[in-house]
Amino acid sequence: MSHSPPDRPETRLISLDWGTTSLRAYRLGDEGEVLEVRATDDGLMQVQDGDFAGVLQRAVGDWIDASESAAIIASGMVTARTGWKETPYVRCPGNPDAIAGQLQTVAAKPNASNDRFVHLVPGMDCLRSDGLPDVMRGEETQLLGLNADAGARTVVLPGTHSKWVSMDANTVRSFQTTMTGETFAVLSEHSILRLMMHGESTEQELSSDAFLSGVETARDAGGHILARLFGARTLPLTGALPESQTADWLSGLLIAGEIAGMLAEPDGRYSNTPISLVGNAALSDRYRLAFNAFDIDADQLPARNVTATGHWRIAQAASLV
Amino acid sequence: MSHSPPDRPETRLISLDWGTTSLRAYRLGDEGEVLEVRATDDGLMQVQDGDFAGVLQRAVGDWIDASESAAIIASGMVTARTGWKETPYVRCPGNPDAIAGQLQTVAAKPNASNDRFVHLVPGMDCLRSDGLPDVMRGEETQLLGLNADAGARTVVLPGTHSKWVSMDANTVRSFQTTMTGETFAVLSEHSILRLMMHGESTEQELSSDAFLSGVETARDAGGHILARLFGARTLPLTGALPESQTADWLSGLLIAGEIAGMLAEPDGRYSNTPISLVGNAALSDRYRLAFNAFDIDADQLPARNVTATGHWRIAQAASLV
Repeated sequence: MSHSPPDRPETRLISLDWGTTSLRAYRLGDEGEVLEVRATDDGLMQVQDGDFAGVLQRAVGDWIDASESAAIIASGMVTARTGWKETPYVRCPGNPDAIAGQLQTVAAKPNASNDRFVHLVPGMDCLRSDGLPDVMRGEETQLLGLNADAGARTVVLPGTHSKWVSMDANTVRSFQTTMTGETFAVLSEHSILRLMMHGESTEQELSSDAFLSGVETARDAGGHILARLFGARTLPLTGALPESQTADWLSGLLIAGEIAGMLAEPDGRYSNTPISLVGNAALSDRYRLAFNAFDIDADQLPARNVTATGHWRIAQAASLV
Repeated sequence: MSHSPPDRPETRLISLDWGTTSLRAYRLGDEGEVLEVRATDDGLMQVQDGDFAGVLQRAVGDWIDASESAAIIASGMVTARTGWKETPYVRCPGNPDAIAGQLQTVAAKPNASNDRFVHLVPGMDCLRSDGLPDVMRGEETQLLGLNADAGARTVVLPGTHSKWVSMDANTVRSFQTTMTGETFAVLSEHSILRLMMHGESTEQELSSDAFLSGVETARDAGGHILARLFGARTLPLTGALPESQTADWLSGLLIAGEIAGMLAEPDGRYSNTPISLVGNAALSDRYRLAFNAFDIDADQLPARNVTATGHWRIAQAASLV
């Protein structure tokens, strides 16, 4: 067993958030506290010839070697078909115990004498009440890193493919993916609406007025957006909206379309629970503003280190730490 | 005045449906009957240096020269900023008289001794009940070519930008554009859903089962499509839908999303009138099937020559024929 100097506390868990375009690594101490973070571009797309072990070594080999007893755990697209090893989904409802029971392992150093493994956290799937299957990979770990003492609630993870998750304590009961972010992206970049998109919504300061106008338009339409989208062309065409704010209007329209649709889900699952947002601050801000237009005060949870905390809890459930 | 031989009846009106990628020309006789049709690729994009008169001459110069008294009338994108002459919109509600009163003219042969003009039919605009402006250019002529004796009804023109039009006799009362077709296109071609789109929906035989499954999914979701789109990924991923039928499923989802949304319009304007479809047969068939799932028997109207008939009626109102 190695002995770390006092200024470098012992590593108990190496936590890897390994996606398509990035690898984020956390070094956790005895109590699951984050001691060190590394963010690299070593996503799946950077891995040559399936040499995940080599990329891992390059990214955190020093952490691994310095702490022989530290467990290593990873989640994200690294468990997809294009990843290190494809893992079967854990079926909803699931909690850390359920996931811990389905961890898969790969050798961290294929030819080394000591047995070091990477424990892969599978994604989750569920059969939704609307009959459609749904899947997530990586988000399950974030969810398990949230406050585990909270009761029945809805956690919204905004993004390219937003997730609406029904949780109870530390159990993921069910979830739904909405393609809001990607619909915004393809309409902005590839439809006739692109001609009016002279401001890049996500890279400039939000025009709250335009955003809220889009929100209210979708809300007042009961969330039916198809017959409102053309407004992103006619409003700037007629001078009613500056072209630089058209992207914000469309963003508001789509986010409120998502919210109205989810609140109107036939089984009513999202209309009776408190709602919490977890995600990057700018996008969560937009969602919070949009929720306000529906008279909903959505709680914005800190997203920092939730993946590391989720890994710690799964590792505890699996007796890895 | 020229004298046509008996086998070539006199031309009273030359009707031009002039769009971005095509020019369709009709030669009409004494009663407005279609004597001859020409379809060319001479759309706006083919016009060099603004030489619309030259392209017109190439397309139907023989018709123009053979009938000195024939009027010439045109509609479509030819009246847009990128066209021959930009014309102001006619505000809804409008009928053939209103449009006839706002025809604009350009010289058919700039340097000829005889005065031949092309009469340009302006598009229409309206301020919708949801506060959004809306515009059409070309469709107004098709609408005026439909049965003018019918009472209050909704005419749906399916397409890249579908139009839902509230008509009463020959008056266009109001209309709304829905971006259903273009949303389908950009999602199919540019989103993650493209990975599952191994059949091109519009170019193969319709899979009715997959289409109707998409229709029912959107209908049962009250028309809220954002949280259903991901089904076009997960259904084929889990083997529940053949990849070759995914495009039809998505097409059904979006068309039914459009229909559900329009039937739910807050002012209820579309839920209390008979609905007629005008458009290409394959797409109208899809809409008719989708309407059936909402217990609505949509009338499929013949689309053939409606533009020519609309031009005839406008020309009559303007005393050009």
